[in-house]
Amino acid sequence: MNASTASPGTGLVVSAHSADFVWRAGGAIASHVRQGYRMKIVCLSYGERGESAKLWRKEGMTLDRVKEARREEAQKAADILGAEIEFFDLGDYPLRVTDEAFYRLVDIYRDLQPSFVLSHSTKDPYNFDHPLAMHVAQETRIIAQAEGHNPGQKVIGAPPVYAFEPHQPEQCEWTPNTFLDITDVWDIKRQAIECMAGQEHLWAYYTRVAQQRGVQAKRNIGITAARNIEYAEGYMRLTPAVVGDLA
Amino acid sequence: MNASTASPGTGLVVSAHSADFVWRAGGAIASHVRQGYRMKIVCLSYGERGESAKLWRKEGMTLDRVKEARREEAQKAADILGAEIEFFDLGDYPLRVTDEAFYRLVDIYRDLQPSFVLSHSTKDPYNFDHPLAMHVAQETRIIAQAEGHNPGQKVIGAPPVYAFEPHQPEQCEWTPNTFLDITDVWDIKRQAIECMAGQEHLWAYYTRVAQQRGVQAKRNIGITAARNIEYAEGYMRLTPAVVGDLA
Amino acid sequence: MNASTASPGTGLVVSAHSADFVWRAGGAIASHVRQGYRMKIVCLSYGERGESAKLWRKEGMTLDRVKEARREEAQKAADILGAEIEFFDLGDYPLRVTDEAFYRLVDIYRDLQPSFVLSHSTKDPYNFDHPLAMHVAQETRIIAQAEGHNPGQKVIGAPPVYAFEPHQPEQCEWTPNTFLDITDVWDIKRQAIECMAGQEHLWAYYTRVAQQRGVQAKRNIGITAARNIEYAEGYMRLTPAVVGDLA
Amino acid sequence: MNASTASPGTGLVVSAHSADFVWRAGGAIASHVRQGYRMKIVCLSYGERGESAKLWRKEGMTLDRVKEARREEAQKAADILGAEIEFFDLGDYPLRVTDEAFYRLVDIYRDLQPSFVLSHSTKDPYNFDHPLAMHVAQETRIIAQAEGHNPGQKVIGAPPVYAFEPHQPEQCEWTPNTFLDITDVWDIKRQAIECMAGQEHLWAYYTRVAQQRGVQAKRNIGITAARNIEYAEGYMRLTPAVVGDLA
Amino acid sequence: MNASTASPGTGLVVSAHSADFVWRAGGAIASHVRQGYRMKIVCLSYGERGESAKLWRKEGMTLDRVKEARREEAQKAADILGAEIEFFDLGDYPLRVTDEAFYRLVDIYRDLQPSFVLSHSTKDPYNFDHPLAMHVAQETRIIAQAEGHNPGQKVIGAPPVYAFEPHQPEQCEWTPNTFLDITDVWDIKRQAIECMAGQEHLWAYYTRVAQQRGVQAKRNIGITAARNIEYAEGYMRLTPAVVGDLA
Amino acid sequence: MNASTASPGTGLVVSAHSADFVWRAGGAIASHVRQGYRMKIVCLSYGERGESAKLWRKEGMTLDRVKEARREEAQKAADILGAEIEFFDLGDYPLRVTDEAFYRLVDIYRDLQPSFVLSHSTKDPYNFDHPLAMHVAQETRIIAQAEGHNPGQKVIGAPPVYAFEPHQPEQCEWTPNTFLDITDVWDIKRQAIECMAGQEHLWAYYTRVAQQRGVQAKRNIGITAARNIEYAEGYMRLTPAVVGDLA
Repeated sequence: MNASTASPGTGLVVSAHSADFVWRAGGAIASHVRQGYRMKIVCLSYGERGESAKLWRKEGMTLDRVKEARREEAQKAADILGAEIEFFDLGDYPLRVTDEAFYRLVDIYRDLQPSFVLSHSTKDPYNFDHPLAMHVAQETRIIAQAEGHNPGQKVIGAPPVYAFEPHQPEQCEWTPNTFLDITDVWDIKRQAIECMAGQEHLWAYYTRVAQQRGVQAKRNIGITAARNIEYAEGYMRLTPAVVGDLA
Repeated sequence: MNASTASPGTGLVVSAHSADFVWRAGGAIASHVRQGYRMKIVCLSYGERGESAKLWRKEGMTLDRVKEARREEAQKAADILGAEIEFFDLGDYPLRVTDEAFYRLVDIYRDLQPSFVLSHSTKDPYNFDHPLAMHVAQETRIIAQAEGHNPGQKVIGAPPVYAFEPHQPEQCEWTPNTFLDITDVWDIKRQAIECMAGQEHLWAYYTRVAQQRGVQAKRNIGITAARNIEYAEGYMRLTPAVVGDLA
Repeated sequence: MNASTASPGTGLVVSAHSADFVWRAGGAIASHVRQGYRMKIVCLSYGERGESAKLWRKEGMTLDRVKEARREEAQKAADILGAEIEFFDLGDYPLRVTDEAFYRLVDIYRDLQPSFVLSHSTKDPYNFDHPLAMHVAQETRIIAQAEGHNPGQKVIGAPPVYAFEPHQPEQCEWTPNTFLDITDVWDIKRQAIECMAGQEHLWAYYTRVAQQRGVQAKRNIGITAARNIEYAEGYMRLTPAVVGDLA
Repeated sequence: MNASTASPGTGLVVSAHSADFVWRAGGAIASHVRQGYRMKIVCLSYGERGESAKLWRKEGMTLDRVKEARREEAQKAADILGAEIEFFDLGDYPLRVTDEAFYRLVDIYRDLQPSFVLSHSTKDPYNFDHPLAMHVAQETRIIAQAEGHNPGQKVIGAPPVYAFEPHQPEQCEWTPNTFLDITDVWDIKRQAIECMAGQEHLWAYYTRVAQQRGVQAKRNIGITAARNIEYAEGYMRLTPAVVGDLA
Repeated sequence: MNASTASPGTGLVVSAHSADFVWRAGGAIASHVRQGYRMKIVCLSYGERGESAKLWRKEGMTLDRVKEARREEAQKAADILGAEIEFFDLGDYPLRVTDEAFYRLVDIYRDLQPSFVLSHSTKDPYNFDHPLAMHVAQETRIIAQAEGHNPGQKVIGAPPVYAFEPHQPEQCEWTPNTFLDITDVWDIKRQAIECMAGQEHLWAYYTRVAQQRGVQAKRNIGITAARNIEYAEGYMRLTPAVVGDLA
Repeated sequence: MNASTASPGTGLVVSAHSADFVWRAGGAIASHVRQGYRMKIVCLSYGERGESAKLWRKEGMTLDRVKEARREEAQKAADILGAEIEFFDLGDYPLRVTDEAFYRLVDIYRDLQPSFVLSHSTKDPYNFDHPLAMHVAQETRIIAQAEGHNPGQKVIGAPPVYAFEPHQPEQCEWTPNTFLDITDVWDIKRQAIECMAGQEHLWAYYTRVAQQRGVQAKRNIGITAARNIEYAEGYMRLTPAVVGDLA
């Protein structure tokens, strides 16, 4: 394999419901795919009970049909973003994580060897599935680091963990200490957003989120910087950075 | 000037007392100098009253003689680290910042156009000069960004601001979200430390600080990383990072 | 139905042990009943193991007899306050919430359609049953909002959630951002308090709590206000208020 | 005076720079004016140095001309909103508050007897003038409550204090615990915004802020509420509320 | 000097207004006096403008007469408690601390060599004089530790600093991590309280505070402890304890 | 029993993994044993999967052999420190606590009647077993206080709870409000540390931790104190202290 085709790394996204990764991390996924990363999304549930109001208002809906519709939307969005996606189908509202699902996620860590991990905020008074997803993403990461878990397998390093933006950031004690410029991939994220037919009312909302974070990101590099930023995603990095320079 | 000699940037260190920059940021200074940065240190005071106990125990000491001794030590340390140094001589215990000194620091921002700024923790119950220094470092940075301050001068961008490690980190609500690997320049930092003849009791203390932060930094890149880290400095970044990738 | 008999709404109180609602929210219950609200109390346990010390010191006591005594006291207090009460009998010290109990509380939300919800502080180092009760009160509220839970049932809106006052407020990170004037119903609350024969040592304590909160409430409307406040209850509102004016 | 013309109260807005009140509290001002409140704005400075970049780029600009332009814009915006406005002209970047200005604000409290007070967030790492304005708004409020200050004058009560939304909310530890519905007066706020010719780049930004807060406010009253909310302003109430019911 | 007359130490109380030390630390003063400590109170102001409402309502009052009345009350209370008292007369609402007063307090530290220091909470949205008093108490303590301040004088050690209880504890981010049993000296504190003729409405309030803290203190030593506690004062210790055992 | 043989009390240490008690509380154990305390350690797991990397790299390792090796090390360390030790063998990475284990710990509380309790920090993003151990230590302590749990048994009082130092203190929101001087027993702690053959890389790290905390403890008693402190352990006391004097 020559250098030009070598992957710069991999990224793991742990999403409580099947649409969360689109609104909150779609830009990061598309951007890293463009940079050559292998990106993998794990959807713990389809969000079939709590985040599919529009679907439930259709006649003749059943849980299975809602799940199927949600799965299709999420798969399509993942395809557009260029990512792999895996569905755990654990149920939502409330999400509960079985031991089997827990170790399945550990296995994914071991197999993927992610360079970074994205999941929900650690607190969310509007949605208790979200912090649980992050908790599991963090705890399984630690198990995957343990030499005594499935000895012989390659343990993982210490990929940084980021919380992506919740719906009402300040209520969730979520502060964006990291802005990712997604201007170049915004059109892709928007296409992925438009796959979420059941939540059309959120399209404009998350477009504005990206614009606001873009303005803020620009302000944080300063007025004198040449680079323009129109769209950005905010992240709260939970793990310390180890760097070689501070600029 | 050809590309190979072009500076990658500049760094500003705002130190309440004349020795603070050595213990707390000596590694960052040496490391960035080695990378080609122009580094500038501002000492708001000499620490002549509050941090020169050993000198005061010598016979015949006067305030001027203490200040002179402290200045010499600091100058020598700065020379070893490869940085410029400027003394504001504002007095310590308590430090008070005049308007004149305030605008002198604004001018330094405008002139230096720093790529990053280092100063004290924003809280320190053991030393009220420290948070004041950081407050002034932050407020003058904002003035230097204002187009209406000395119109015509080049305004500065938005250099990231970092708080370096205080003496008792947890009491100061200081959390290191950034570790800087200083293994390669540790010998230089140690030489600079040894210039501080009046505070010899702190040499071993800050050597151990660097070792502990080194172990922690290593843990934060993970056991699987090839790179070894023996010495590090911890920083608390106060301003959000704007990045192109999350790995 | 004519306007004068229309209920202004309903309120739900989730109490870990069978006496908590009296000390902590008895005034709110009585006050809202007087205003025409339908008030419903859910007691997750009787507090039979952890909050019945005096009963256990009687000869011949058994768990069932303690529970029976506690139930009678709580029923009597609820009657005095004018509220409905329902006992889940989940056990205490430690309280554990089964799936069945969880969904029973969801059903109550759906049926009652509460205008507001009261429960414990989210943290309490003296009593781990308390934060668990609040956690369940919050999570079931979210399930009751989900269109996909028992589709066809009427979902609930977004009733504000309040934490009532814990025994040692500051240790519980509980801050009263809302004071409810209970002067007019104080005599009713005191009667309800006196039903708690097993905890007579707390009568004076919680009378003083009401007096102190009364003084504080008065101070927060200002010395110039005509209204006097002698007794109050403090609440920590956890959810944002949506208002039409700010006065 | 007959009941229909009686004022329901008065409101005080303390703005560090002459445009802050428009972006951050324009909706509250217009809404309360419509409800009959007398609204008064105090601008501590014109924002002439730090928030007039566009003006400074015009040829032949002087400090006085910038101030004059800013004053005109602010006066026009206040007129549109229906509020009184008073300029303290204390200078900005940095703002410094003299004793004279301090007591002038106390006098305004005594004269206006405000029903509520709006000012900046208590922390803002991007702008140190903002927290200073809030600090002064709070401290002068307390002086105005003191019977021994200008004895004989009527003291004020305890008007609630709100922090309006800063530019980068999460960085300022600002959390909106109160949403004000401004849908009905949005067109007026937008007109006032458009007076700020020197900061046209912010028009769209603050329109989106109002839309996002509108969506969030709607979510906080619940999907089942009849009322629609398209535009809102977020506030962080700093003082406890004293209420008669909790719904 | 024989052992029976040796003082176990000294204590310093820094009070913003002349009555604060009575309500908030009267028990600690009396208790330590009884244990043989020399206790010294510094009143930065008389509280003549902000905490003398009742006096101002008397006919013919002037600032001097209010101050005189407040001084007499405070002197009498100090006498009853057995403490020395010194008045700085710096004015209140707002309190401002001159350089002269600052260094006078440093001198008191040097002279008294306190074993512990008591002052206000570090935050108080109802009273900005209080946190300023604590700030000055802390900063002067640090100056008194500096060998270069008045070289030749005996520097002080590191006396622990405690914040006594503010009027509305939770609003002030004040948490009592230390309870002092004042049961034995309660009658003395109550006598001192009754010297405050101008604030009679607070007598019952602070009696109840002592009772509530007594109950809480008792709970924190546990039901099995033989010792009874009827009255206590809560303190927030700001500096770490260095101990020889953990029981 | 004569006074010279009376035990001053007992101490309980709840350790998630079998080596934690050595690094983090070895000094406290040895010091209290020397003072006559009966000290008991509970190891919830052997740390066989997550903290035995070196052992796993040996050929032919199995889970049982790792556990056996870890048990021997821990037993030897406990013997050196002079403490009793009990192994719950609940598994690690992840630790999960069964009802049986939960009540076994309650029984130990009842039997031991501890004077104080030591366990992990309440948060640790690097290790989720640690906060779980502390949670269980706290919740079982409360059950052991309940008169209705195993009526007839002697309930416990309210032993203070301390969190010992985690590996990366600031990341764990752990602040040492208590320093224990372990200078006199340092040699014993070091011997116990050297039993941990599988984690030799940590010996020097935790020796430096003890030295750093020693310097900090010394600073917190002040330069004027006669006592020297070379080694210390930091603790975060979670429960309020009830004291008779404040010096």
